[in-house]
Amino acid sequence: MRRLGIDIGGTKTLCVVVDDSVDGGSVVDERQVPTDPTGDAAAAIVDLARTFGEIDSVGVGIAGLVSRDGDVVVTTHLPGVRELPLRERVASQMGLPVVVDNDATCAAVAEWRIGAARGVDDALMVTLGTGIGGGAIVGGRVARGHNGFAGEFGHMVVARGGEPCPCGRRGCWEGYASGGGLARLAGGVASETVVERFLDGDSRATEIVTSFADWVVVGLHNLVNIYDPAYIVLGGGLGSRPEIVELVSTRFAEGEGGHVGRALPSLVAALLGQRAGAIGAAFIGAGD
Amino acid sequence: MRRLGIDIGGTKTLCVVVDDSVDGGSVVDERQVPTDPTGDAAAAIVDLARTFGEIDSVGVGIAGLVSRDGDVVVTTHLPGVRELPLRERVASQMGLPVVVDNDATCAAVAEWRIGAARGVDDALMVTLGTGIGGGAIVGGRVARGHNGFAGEFGHMVVARGGEPCPCGRRGCWEGYASGGGLARLAGGVASETVVERFLDGDSRATEIVTSFADWVVVGLHNLVNIYDPAYIVLGGGLGSRPEIVELVSTRFAEGEGGHVGRALPSLVAALLGQRAGAIGAAFIGAGD
Repeated sequence: MRRLGIDIGGTKTLCVVVDDSVDGGSVVDERQVPTDPTGDAAAAIVDLARTFGEIDSVGVGIAGLVSRDGDVVVTTHLPGVRELPLRERVASQMGLPVVVDNDATCAAVAEWRIGAARGVDDALMVTLGTGIGGGAIVGGRVARGHNGFAGEFGHMVVARGGEPCPCGRRGCWEGYASGGGLARLAGGVASETVVERFLDGDSRATEIVTSFADWVVVGLHNLVNIYDPAYIVLGGGLGSRPEIVELVSTRFAEGEGGHVGRALPSLVAALLGQRAGAIGAAFIGAGD
Repeated sequence: MRRLGIDIGGTKTLCVVVDDSVDGGSVVDERQVPTDPTGDAAAAIVDLARTFGEIDSVGVGIAGLVSRDGDVVVTTHLPGVRELPLRERVASQMGLPVVVDNDATCAAVAEWRIGAARGVDDALMVTLGTGIGGGAIVGGRVARGHNGFAGEFGHMVVARGGEPCPCGRRGCWEGYASGGGLARLAGGVASETVVERFLDGDSRATEIVTSFADWVVVGLHNLVNIYDPAYIVLGGGLGSRPEIVELVSTRFAEGEGGHVGRALPSLVAALLGQRAGAIGAAFIGAGD
């Protein structure tokens, strides 16, 4: 079956067609277009989908809180999809099964189905980018939660009374272990600049990135205590850089995790890169 | 079918027989005996089980980390069961299906099957006692994790660099939101004494218990962001006191949870009291 997956990001929209009869799932077509953040997202999805010829289902991934029926989307990035009955409108116009879900949850599904966490029943995806995204596979199934909002790992408070977070709490993990958090640790220097200096061997940047990695590790150990996953897949702009994954892995293995008597999960780099969200959306559209 | 559930605590062992053909599960027999913490736990379970007449399965709940095969138990309280091949030995002697699991996970199952969280697919149990225990129902199934160690909510760091925890980390939730945490907030006064003074209307004790409740709330909001449950069931010695549940509920509803655009889950008191662990063990022995 040809499964269309669409990942609607703030600036670009990536579409893939996954043929799920090939080796557990294989990307057979792919296209990227700019996102119109304020436009009619349902119409845009339908227009895009029709350019892919015959397809059997549509999955859509979006940054934000997506309800289980796919018909309420809470997002700060895409006013054009906010609270639109998105799933219903696309489904009625296409006459196909349509599922809408959180983009990090989609990425988790992709890495679990054909990526870095293939073959296990319990895995987490943590995307470290501008913010922190999360998705969980629990007992061989996607964990969605009661409303569809599970996996908001970034808003786990790890430093009560700490940095204020746009969500209204203080000390959220995202305030420390994201690109924004790294920039703050660096006194306002852009996270990309800090990472470049770190890769060049700059000692001050190394100190800052190590401190950042330790914040990442605090939250990862929390997730180990909570979920006991076999794999944690790191992705996102920051989280998929091999040098960052290596540093975080080292600190993760050295740190006191509070897991007396248990082996730590494997911390692995995402394999599917920026396509993970779209690929996972295709699997979710197919019933994951 | 008659399902035997055994909850082995540090000082006492509670056994129940659940008839799962009656109204989703009903307790038809019950007995409590002292725990012999250093004795042969497998032999003790077999002896106990044989006093209940004909039974169809055995479930055992134990405080500690229990592996998925029930054959490795990491516990600080019960040297007599530690790393014993407990499940295997009981099963071979009884000739019955036997499952061993964490006691808080058992309690979660009981409250989900016939207690406060009946009828939903996503629920958490948080027991506030000497420490913090946890169990999760995700998508209508018990979340066990890769090794069987999921639900160790108490070792989620909420105050990085804070109070040292016996687990080796600092700032674990358990260091603040448990009986031990309450005693520490009270400058060493026993948690039971503080609660009694609070119930008597003492203003200093009210301040301390409110501060304790706010620490409970920090972790609960974290779990909402992570799991998005329909219900959170509070149990355990401290967590099942109605006045504590009421205070925590009020602070939970007032607090900034970081859940923009979502309804909060229902925070409810456990219904099954001290029998929850044994009842849940019976359900787990029956295949939950």
